[in-house]
Amino acid sequence: MTAPGPAGRRRSHPIEERAFHRWLARTLPAGSEGLLPLGDDAAAVRLPPGTVPVVTTDALVEGTHFLRGSPPSLIGAAASAVSLSDVAAKGAAPLAVFLALILPRGSDRRWSEALVRGAERTAARFGAHVLGGDTKPGPWPVVVSTVVGAARPQRLVGRTGARPGDLLVTTGEVGRGGVAARDLAAPGRARGAAVAAMLQFEPRVREGIALAGSAHAMLDTSDGLAEGVHLLAAASGVRVVVDEARLPIVAEARRLPVRARRAATFYGGDYELLATVPPARLATAERAVRRVGGRLTRIGAVTPGRGAFLSARSKTLPMPEPGWRSFA
Amino acid sequence: MTAPGPAGRRRSHPIEERAFHRWLARTLPAGSEGLLPLGDDAAAVRLPPGTVPVVTTDALVEGTHFLRGSPPSLIGAAASAVSLSDVAAKGAAPLAVFLALILPRGSDRRWSEALVRGAERTAARFGAHVLGGDTKPGPWPVVVSTVVGAARPQRLVGRTGARPGDLLVTTGEVGRGGVAARDLAAPGRARGAAVAAMLQFEPRVREGIALAGSAHAMLDTSDGLAEGVHLLAAASGVRVVVDEARLPIVAEARRLPVRARRAATFYGGDYELLATVPPARLATAERAVRRVGGRLTRIGAVTPGRGAFLSARSKTLPMPEPGWRSFA
Repeated sequence: MTAPGPAGRRRSHPIEERAFHRWLARTLPAGSEGLLPLGDDAAAVRLPPGTVPVVTTDALVEGTHFLRGSPPSLIGAAASAVSLSDVAAKGAAPLAVFLALILPRGSDRRWSEALVRGAERTAARFGAHVLGGDTKPGPWPVVVSTVVGAARPQRLVGRTGARPGDLLVTTGEVGRGGVAARDLAAPGRARGAAVAAMLQFEPRVREGIALAGSAHAMLDTSDGLAEGVHLLAAASGVRVVVDEARLPIVAEARRLPVRARRAATFYGGDYELLATVPPARLATAERAVRRVGGRLTRIGAVTPGRGAFLSARSKTLPMPEPGWRSFA
Repeated sequence: MTAPGPAGRRRSHPIEERAFHRWLARTLPAGSEGLLPLGDDAAAVRLPPGTVPVVTTDALVEGTHFLRGSPPSLIGAAASAVSLSDVAAKGAAPLAVFLALILPRGSDRRWSEALVRGAERTAARFGAHVLGGDTKPGPWPVVVSTVVGAARPQRLVGRTGARPGDLLVTTGEVGRGGVAARDLAAPGRARGAAVAAMLQFEPRVREGIALAGSAHAMLDTSDGLAEGVHLLAAASGVRVVVDEARLPIVAEARRLPVRARRAATFYGGDYELLATVPPARLATAERAVRRVGGRLTRIGAVTPGRGAFLSARSKTLPMPEPGWRSFA
């Protein structure tokens, strides 16, 4: 699909808010289900009995998280996915997605529609729906997603509960975001494919819900494994040691020399779940994740003390800072 | 207070996300109350029994909704207020505010802190607290607020419930936003005061909750009274006629000649509540609003038919389109 940019030349279908709301109400399945119709001042969300709403909000900015010319359906999918991932990291099941779109005046309405459809498609795969949002003119495209999920309060998993003796586990593979960033920076590579790779990741929604019964602490590695380990150690007041030999590194990074491999591994943008589980719950956690089609790997341990470390070839080093910090 | 702009010259305190989260956790009262600590991937919101979450999201863009140099505490207050107003218009009580801040790299951290403090102060006046958010670098400042409120499903007030025979009522006064926009455009006026006036408005939170028991339909007039009447008539499939002689027009607009007065009245940015109530409930609604310190004025009627009209000097005219449309 050719994707006219948000400020592209085709201005035949500018965004007009009333018309956009009518389109939303016609297009989105939740239009007929919600407690309030789509396009109202606010949306009401039905929660399963005994649960509390779990809410997160994330901004994607053109030039950083997507590029002019990125397919809007992929931008929408990524907008849903970044927030779905955060809600899943608390063990919550997602229910509703809200989108705030800041787009240049005269933007093509079909661009927004494709974006909303992409967001809805990704949300719907995990049982959530786009229930509302806002559109505002602005000189620089920004997409802000908010996801509302539901969890039983006693099943909520924060970042502070890691205890000495816990094992450190991760879903999926490590280094996906780093490899995509590397491809994006490399001259002569297919830039479009690298951008698409950065936008197409799988939020570990089912895995997060599956781990909620076993994990003492959990977060997503949206800023990379290294940053996740730093945050987990600081929030829980423990020492976390990652065993490099155990890391399930993506194939594209495994063949790189050590320094380049580490740079890719710890760069960021992985969107896996990082959790600590007590040893007695490891088998249960692995089974629960396998049952939803996921993969769980034990990659380290929690011990008394403070800080984030990497154990590599029988040496223990401080965990590197994530690569994106040098650009932040 | 002198307010260094988000991209101001004072770069001594750039935003650093971990440090900003620590500051939030220390500063915001909800840090010690929430089901999850501030700065976690997501926040969990405690809901009163029997209620459902009511969610809205709104974007404020520099250059449109605030200006470079606007005091950050007022931008924060306005960010809370626009979303508090939407949640109140559904009859819901606000609980939590989430803020996504897109700011140029090197922005002064104190600017963000003053913004968050302003948002928290306004939220706290209505029983809500800032529970989370996101900060991202971007070339153009944008603030996106999301408010989560709570309402009993049977007390939710949408836009679709207006019935022929209902009376049309509004809180507060009409034309506040139009007068502020007029002042902003006028040469030689105090621009700072006009900007401050646009950012300082009172969300009718208590009035919305008070009206929930009586109103058939309700929305806020964030886009002005005229647009509100258009939306209400369209959503409910009715004819709504506003009696111009009954409008509680702000003093600054009352002295203007007819055309200028109408332009100010229907411009937009009022953030009052517009509701329809059956005649038998009018006295109850008036009492309930008065009890929370508010003001309710009957300004028109709902009849069979379609469309939005203005009755002025015994003529009935189509309701004007809001003034901001000519700029949109």
